[in-house]
Amino acid sequence: MSEIPIAPIERIIKKTGAQRVSGDAVYALRNIMEEWAEDIAYKAVRIARHSGRKTINKGDIEVSI
Amino acid sequence: MSEIPIAPIERIIKKTGAQRVSGDAVYALRNIMEEWAEDIAYKAVRIARHSGRKTINKGDIEVSI
Repeated sequence: MSEIPIAPIERIIKKTGAQRVSGDAVYALRNIMEEWAEDIAYKAVRIARHSGRKTINKGDIEVSI
Repeated sequence: MSEIPIAPIERIIKKTGAQRVSGDAVYALRNIMEEWAEDIAYKAVRIARHSGRKTINKGDIEVSI
């Protein structure tokens, strides 16, 4: 299921000021991000389909957030 | 600023049933995901600091979602 790699998520957490980050904290953030992305993508696909388009465009994503 | 790579985001959108995805749709989803991740990470860092810990753990992430 998981698509998003772990290393970028760890970098994001460290950039916000964390000195150390546990491995399961990184996985927890990665997993919730992936769920959000899937929810938004699913809505965007339905909106594009409803509009008779096969291509998901930026507006489909924006109205699904 | 951007840490999350584009290819996994495109795969997530395609897995939800999209036949085609425009490039700017992928970037739009990536950018909002990155903003969310930063917001959560920032809260988690503050919670850990408030608890006198230097390590961000899974619970810090979970209460920040």
